Amino acid sequence: MQVTNLTFDEIEIGDTTSYSRLITDQEVQAFAAISGDHNPLHLDPEYAATTAFGECIAHGMLTGALISATIAMQLPGPGSVYLSQSVQFRAPVLLGDTLTVTLTVTAKHAKRPWVTLECEVTNQEEKAVAKGEAQVAAPTAKETVTVVP
Amino acid sequence: MQVTNLTFDEIEIGDTTSYSRLITDQEVQAFAAISGDHNPLHLDPEYAATTAFGECIAHGMLTGALISATIAMQLPGPGSVYLSQSVQFRAPVLLGDTLTVTLTVTAKHAKRPWVTLECEVTNQEEKAVAKGEAQVAAPTAKETVTVVP
Repeated sequence: MQVTNLTFDEIEIGDTTSYSRLITDQEVQAFAAISGDHNPLHLDPEYAATTAFGECIAHGMLTGALISATIAMQLPGPGSVYLSQSVQFRAPVLLGDTLTVTLTVTAKHAKRPWVTLECEVTNQEEKAVAKGEAQVAAPTAKETVTVVP
Repeated sequence: MQVTNLTFDEIEIGDTTSYSRLITDQEVQAFAAISGDHNPLHLDPEYAATTAFGECIAHGMLTGALISATIAMQLPGPGSVYLSQSVQFRAPVLLGDTLTVTLTVTAKHAKRPWVTLECEVTNQEEKAVAKGEAQVAAPTAKETVTVVP
């Protein structure tokens, strides 16, 4: 698969993109392995049943991983340099939820050049599970890359 | 392995903890799989050699995953509820780098109750690769949980 970026000059305020992903115990187990967060709230249904959540929930920062992927693959895409991210965790993500990341360009800063992206992650009930803002240095050169499966 | 949390009452301003982790292509490939960010900058050494970085670098948000794990496993540990995170990406993370997350409690807010944590991620040369701040609802009940390997 090939992916083409959007350059700083091509990006306009109000541009938007979205990316959806089903979250299963596979993603949660992999996130535990790479981060080192092995809390039973994410991994042990019997333990999770004793908590206020009542069932296993995904790691909150998994939503941050999805936001970062949407920036890197779609808007602006390859050649972006991630400068910063804020994220507020609004609601738990349950196994079996389908999350949708929506990015919207809210500002362009010509000096560096970089763009500000409003980031929202919703579940299949359109409930916001995470919100935040990213600052990204946008590519100046048009580029198409072959992504690695 | 068992992990015991720190309650809001036990936590003091200035408390600190750290967590170190070697980053290899294994973590980077797993992060690509769970996030969907398959950019060749992270995964294809030949492509990465043509970029300003000169070699494959880790996904920036992998540092966010390590920060979140340090909060969930160590300070405050199990029973924490992650409210928000900001992170600034300061320098690239190379494969083979050993990252160290350091968290420091900078404020306690009795109302909810929650704590503010200053977060720094450094590499083996003590260079800061990421910095940020977390807001975390701290547990009110002492708890020891069995983590899932």
